[in-house]
Amino acid sequence: MNYEHIFDQAIERLHSEGRYRVFIDILRNKGAYPNARCFAGHNGPKPITVWCSNDYLAMGQHPKVIEAMEEALHDVGAGSGGTRNIGGNTHYHIELESELADLLGKEGALLFTSGYVSNDATLSTLAKLLPGCVIFSDELNHASMIAGIRNSGCEKKVFRHNDLEHLEELLAATDPETPKLIAFESVYSMDGDIAPIHAICDLADKYNALTYIDEVHAVGMYGPRGGGITDRDEAAHRIDIIEGTLGKAFGVMGGYIAADQKVIDCIRSYAPGFIFTTSLSPVLVAGVLASVKHLKSSNEEREGQQRSAAMLKQMFRDAGLPVMNSTTHIVPLMVGDPVKAKAISDILLAEYGAYVQPINFPTVPRGTERLRFTPGPAHTEEMMRELTGALVEIWERMEMKLAA
Amino acid sequence: MNYEHIFDQAIERLHSEGRYRVFIDILRNKGAYPNARCFAGHNGPKPITVWCSNDYLAMGQHPKVIEAMEEALHDVGAGSGGTRNIGGNTHYHIELESELADLLGKEGALLFTSGYVSNDATLSTLAKLLPGCVIFSDELNHASMIAGIRNSGCEKKVFRHNDLEHLEELLAATDPETPKLIAFESVYSMDGDIAPIHAICDLADKYNALTYIDEVHAVGMYGPRGGGITDRDEAAHRIDIIEGTLGKAFGVMGGYIAADQKVIDCIRSYAPGFIFTTSLSPVLVAGVLASVKHLKSSNEEREGQQRSAAMLKQMFRDAGLPVMNSTTHIVPLMVGDPVKAKAISDILLAEYGAYVQPINFPTVPRGTERLRFTPGPAHTEEMMRELTGALVEIWERMEMKLAA
Ligand SMILES: Cc1ncc(COP(=O)(O)O)c(C=O)c1O
Ligand SMILES: Cc1ncc(COP(=O)(O)O)c(C=O)c1O
Repeated sequence: MNYEHIFDQAIERLHSEGRYRVFIDILRNKGAYPNARCFAGHNGPKPITVWCSNDYLAMGQHPKVIEAMEEALHDVGAGSGGTRNIGGNTHYHIELESELADLLGKEGALLFTSGYVSNDATLSTLAKLLPGCVIFSDELNHASMIAGIRNSGCEKKVFRHNDLEHLEELLAATDPETPKLIAFESVYSMDGDIAPIHAICDLADKYNALTYIDEVHAVGMYGPRGGGITDRDEAAHRIDIIEGTLGKAFGVMGGYIAADQKVIDCIRSYAPGFIFTTSLSPVLVAGVLASVKHLKSSNEEREGQQRSAAMLKQMFRDAGLPVMNSTTHIVPLMVGDPVKAKAISDILLAEYGAYVQPINFPTVPRGTERLRFTPGPAHTEEMMRELTGALVEIWERMEMKLAA
Repeated sequence: MNYEHIFDQAIERLHSEGRYRVFIDILRNKGAYPNARCFAGHNGPKPITVWCSNDYLAMGQHPKVIEAMEEALHDVGAGSGGTRNIGGNTHYHIELESELADLLGKEGALLFTSGYVSNDATLSTLAKLLPGCVIFSDELNHASMIAGIRNSGCEKKVFRHNDLEHLEELLAATDPETPKLIAFESVYSMDGDIAPIHAICDLADKYNALTYIDEVHAVGMYGPRGGGITDRDEAAHRIDIIEGTLGKAFGVMGGYIAADQKVIDCIRSYAPGFIFTTSLSPVLVAGVLASVKHLKSSNEEREGQQRSAAMLKQMFRDAGLPVMNSTTHIVPLMVGDPVKAKAISDILLAEYGAYVQPINFPTVPRGTERLRFTPGPAHTEEMMRELTGALVEIWERMEMKLAA
């Protein structure tokens, strides 16, 4: 047994496939987003424009959020000092849980340290509580849902992406007495398309299945109060468990589920990933509270984001760039090759000061490597023109095809 | 399939075993720790003294930590806005990783959103990289290590707590060509005892096994620079992977591993729990940086904690209270019954304004229910006298035995 050799080989595999990742070293400039400073490989910090942040609405620099965090910092200190059960249950946590329950139209909500953990902990625990449970999982579900499903140890049936016929076929082929759970996302983050929520819920009703939706890339951004696509489509009451993040549109960090009180109580009481970990810092929780409250009543950020996304898609299309068919705020540009995707990203950063991360396997399937832009309310028309011009220049330089 | 009924039954089981948990609603008072405010069940906030926080050294309210967090909040904003690979790799993260690597005497370090996630993600990924790996796990290992080991899907052999003979027996019975990993903790958080690190490493050498140690309840508190028990015992170089938390002695939130650069690179590249999640808020990372740097050069907090722990243990012993045989800063008082443990805790809070959470199953084995005190540098002799007096009164009231 030569352990070093095995580790070497594992790293070598990544290099040989052109998908060894180098993290770019940046600091965002509060109050000047999407502006940031980039460190690595330069002489001192260099200003850049960030095009791939999931702080979708720039709430991470909203004055109300900053102020609330500063206040909590001075009132109660840096960390919670304990698990939710042992000393780490602050008044902020309780308030945010009831705020989220209200936003999402559910009886209760439960906080986790991240959206990843909320998916992993909830799915794995839920399926263990339901003996013999079968989980029906969209093939494009996020890694954290896949982890939760695998860790539950229960049977999984994968349906083709947003394919209702395939889902029904699988449901119909499963014993009616078997507990069933359909797990899917609302907005798929890499393609920017949306699930047919009501139609999936119709199938869930017909086959007596529980429904679990990940609204990580929708919450805060859709619906009159920012409750997500379930809010926009008035479907929240038809979903048993709604999951989401506090680290993207809300701009801070953390995750949650919202559901009937019974389900919340079960996960709270049985999920190791919830029980055995220091609770979210009250500083973060205070920031999220301010963010959720603001986005409940303000549409300005949501409208600005939709405007920016529509404009950038139009510019890309007009320039003949291969923008994908996204119906949301996510603007993916197909490249189809990991080495080229990385090269384009490198040139954009080095020569144009534009930062967009290439998205390679395992985040997307091989052969669908892409650049994923997330313009927000603070990206200006001028920034978009510059970006589009830069991309056209690079596309030509690399002898890649532009549409006529 | 009646889902509601199943959830009802799951909750009912907890009530009938006397281990349904009600979270107590508190806010700590920055600058006045261990003082806090308690909400639930009272008319407005009521002042209490916290005896069960894992903010062991009160670093969560240290002026340097607060100041660093405030500065980061105003410099870069609330959240990181992305995963480490996609926009969420800030200069703070890189700096903290090199600070931790230095503290722990390793080539590199890697941050996670929590100590739970660092154990789960690292153990599950490591074992998958080593085909056929067998993990040797101390029977008292934390839930997050157990989760990581189970989620790795590899074979597990559990050795009796700190039992070197049993560990050797299991190692000797395993094929020499099989990859092996010994996973254990340094300070066991519920009993307060310490693993024989060098002796375990001797066995690892003899049987060619990797070693993995959880220093969650030791880092910051032991060793001349606060590197943990591996620092105190000069054993860091003998351990392959050192894991820890940023949410206990460092007072903030988050987790890490430290190891050779190759191992770090493998986990960084292959662990879904590291890759697919929003990175730690830079505000938290800035706070931890200040905390780690301070505790590297200041012994005052460590000495104060050891003094307080020794004093409280002595007072308990002198009063005939059943304090367990802890050799560390953790002061467990054995009760042996979940209902009594909860009753004592309730009386302490309601009548004496002292908050200590009862520790019941599944956190400790049934029949070993206890109260777990974590006195720190800020707990005064007078507070300890009051607490001891209160406990003696309650012990007598409940007709429980005191030692002569
Ligand atoms: C669909 C989806 N679900 C869950 C997560 C995890 O959320 P978090 O970043 O809060 O861990 C992500 C991305 O990070 C995601 O894209
Ligand atoms: C031994 C041990 N390891 C890991 C953890 C998890 O660390 P964190 O609270 O940072 O998730 C804990 C407790 O929370 C613990 O007691």
